Amino acid sequence: MLNFEFMNPTKVLFGKGQIASLAKEVPSDARILMLYGGGSIKKNGIYEQVKDALKGFDVLEFSGIPANPEYEVLLEALKMIREEKISFMLAVGGGSVIDGVKFLSAAALYKGDNPWDILSLKIRTEKGLPFGTVLTLPATASEMNSGAVISRKATQEKFSMGGPGLFPKFSILDPQVVASIPERQLANGITDAFTHVLEQYMTYPSGALLQDRIAEGIMQTLVEVAPRVIKDPSDYEAAANFMWSCTMALNGLIQKGVPTDWAVHFMGHELTALFGIDHARTLAIIAPSHYRYNFESKKEKLAQYAERVWGITTGTLEEKATAGIKATENFFHSLEIDTKLSEYTPEFKGTAQIIFRRFTDRGWLGLGEHKSLTPADVEKIVEMSY
Amino acid sequence: MLNFEFMNPTKVLFGKGQIASLAKEVPSDARILMLYGGGSIKKNGIYEQVKDALKGFDVLEFSGIPANPEYEVLLEALKMIREEKISFMLAVGGGSVIDGVKFLSAAALYKGDNPWDILSLKIRTEKGLPFGTVLTLPATASEMNSGAVISRKATQEKFSMGGPGLFPKFSILDPQVVASIPERQLANGITDAFTHVLEQYMTYPSGALLQDRIAEGIMQTLVEVAPRVIKDPSDYEAAANFMWSCTMALNGLIQKGVPTDWAVHFMGHELTALFGIDHARTLAIIAPSHYRYNFESKKEKLAQYAERVWGITTGTLEEKATAGIKATENFFHSLEIDTKLSEYTPEFKGTAQIIFRRFTDRGWLGLGEHKSLTPADVEKIVEMSY
Repeated sequence: MLNFEFMNPTKVLFGKGQIASLAKEVPSDARILMLYGGGSIKKNGIYEQVKDALKGFDVLEFSGIPANPEYEVLLEALKMIREEKISFMLAVGGGSVIDGVKFLSAAALYKGDNPWDILSLKIRTEKGLPFGTVLTLPATASEMNSGAVISRKATQEKFSMGGPGLFPKFSILDPQVVASIPERQLANGITDAFTHVLEQYMTYPSGALLQDRIAEGIMQTLVEVAPRVIKDPSDYEAAANFMWSCTMALNGLIQKGVPTDWAVHFMGHELTALFGIDHARTLAIIAPSHYRYNFESKKEKLAQYAERVWGITTGTLEEKATAGIKATENFFHSLEIDTKLSEYTPEFKGTAQIIFRRFTDRGWLGLGEHKSLTPADVEKIVEMSY
Repeated sequence: MLNFEFMNPTKVLFGKGQIASLAKEVPSDARILMLYGGGSIKKNGIYEQVKDALKGFDVLEFSGIPANPEYEVLLEALKMIREEKISFMLAVGGGSVIDGVKFLSAAALYKGDNPWDILSLKIRTEKGLPFGTVLTLPATASEMNSGAVISRKATQEKFSMGGPGLFPKFSILDPQVVASIPERQLANGITDAFTHVLEQYMTYPSGALLQDRIAEGIMQTLVEVAPRVIKDPSDYEAAANFMWSCTMALNGLIQKGVPTDWAVHFMGHELTALFGIDHARTLAIIAPSHYRYNFESKKEKLAQYAERVWGITTGTLEEKATAGIKATENFFHSLEIDTKLSEYTPEFKGTAQIIFRRFTDRGWLGLGEHKSLTPADVEKIVEMSY
């Protein structure tokens, strides 16, 4: 087990009707900016629930934060935060809205001239403008971590950011919101969370036996509830386990004491930036090829995963490892998630070379748990994903 | 899954050499009281490491906090905290020292006349005197939770206390400390942590699929590393997994969203108060009888546990459940932990009646996950444990 530091101060309020708890969590004297996305919360009743819970509070609104939260849009919100002297933000949405609010939390207190520096220069945020969240879409665990990913259309870039100042003060997770999520988003959320676990698990044995068990437990739970969630998102028990699994997949716990990979995300982000493919789907495109390409260095964990998550107990270590990759693809397919780039865009040819050049230009050498994957390796993995 | 609130702000610093990190975690202007137990930390080098790390800080010491932290001793420390205007405490020890420091944290800021009221009247502590910990004995998870158990010899009482103000600011967990722990304490720690998980798991199916998986993962890990830890406590990998499993067993996570029992602890506490039996051993005495007595209401979870933790996959549900109890006893026996009260004291007769009267006197009705166990039930369970 590797040395680690772990702290996660976010207060989680989980369960039926928890949105009504907002009033006791928001500072009573706050000037609040409530931020949300395209307005789906006005259709599913969450907007009303939040507004009811915040009756008597001083609340302004900013809507229209898009999927893959867009820098230019966030700058408008930043202007409003400054002009209106906002002291607390409430993100009502999924990972995109929450990530956008994290950028705003950092940017509102950032002392430099250009907020883009927070992203391009990877400036960590030690103290941000405080915010809470009401989660409407389980997937990214942004509701219980201190990281965010922000996009910039103008330059087709997608950067990550973070820091201990960016944990939400509280997050409200009511699994009843799952009932109104479209099937496509449910499949994305399951795939996203599952791949988050894989990125922190599918490396090499490091003697972190407990972390392995917890990671496997999250994946087993996602596998168990996925068909139930897809079939009937109003199945509360399935929705609750889906929601809590997504949070636990990336709230920091399972990455502590283990090597982590994240190469799938780095490659996947490029596919979103280039083609606008849903984040989760880019992970499903890249992951199987990534594991096949790096088979030798990952085969022990692949075999352990095949055994414990998929019950594949026969065959050699290599056979089990191979079957584990296949089981992962089958799982994504069962969610109607395609796993080849060519199934998403007819313009897939040359993508590997474009990403090769982007990685080379940015100096992104050394991806993966061994920091050994070069842009040339990335090129081959992306090509295998066509 | 039941509704829940979860927050755990303790910062964990885990791994080799982490004691040296003390200087960056302790407030630089603090007047520090370092508290420890009987002096084993002076034999195993931890005392020196802590003093070295705190060079230049203003540090006083209080030693002699006994196992089952004793109220009268703690009052002496409380006097010192007040007279010396201590602003930060550092607990260096196991659960007893840390629990004692939690009582002091609460008592130092308590506005009432009699600190015993915190225990007898179950007063929750919203804000305590800040403290950190250096863990020397994995077992209770007191290093990452906000609860404590305090004893009073004069009245043979043992009470629990807690509140959100009692989380350690930080806890340093260096698995290398395990190497110098006597075998008896190692066996106790494993048994204690294992039973902590059982208390939060062995109830009835509540649809908390992920919590079940994590609880099972902790138990699987403890079962896997227990023989290695006992055989060679300097086996770092085994020690690290043992240590992190103990913390995860009772840091609040696995109890969220599920019914919990804790009847084994309530009964076990009486055996410690009456006979001075090690806390962990009292749990091993009570748990098997408790599960046999409440077999009907617990058999589904007992069977699931037997299957997933012990690999018992054949037989009827009842047969698996019964085999699960037997496997638990065998596990304790493998650690040289006896599971019958008569193996600890020749004066066991009448214990059930004494505990019956104590529970009746205190009005402790309604133990267990259904709050349905009466003192008469407790009497029978304790009798089955002779």
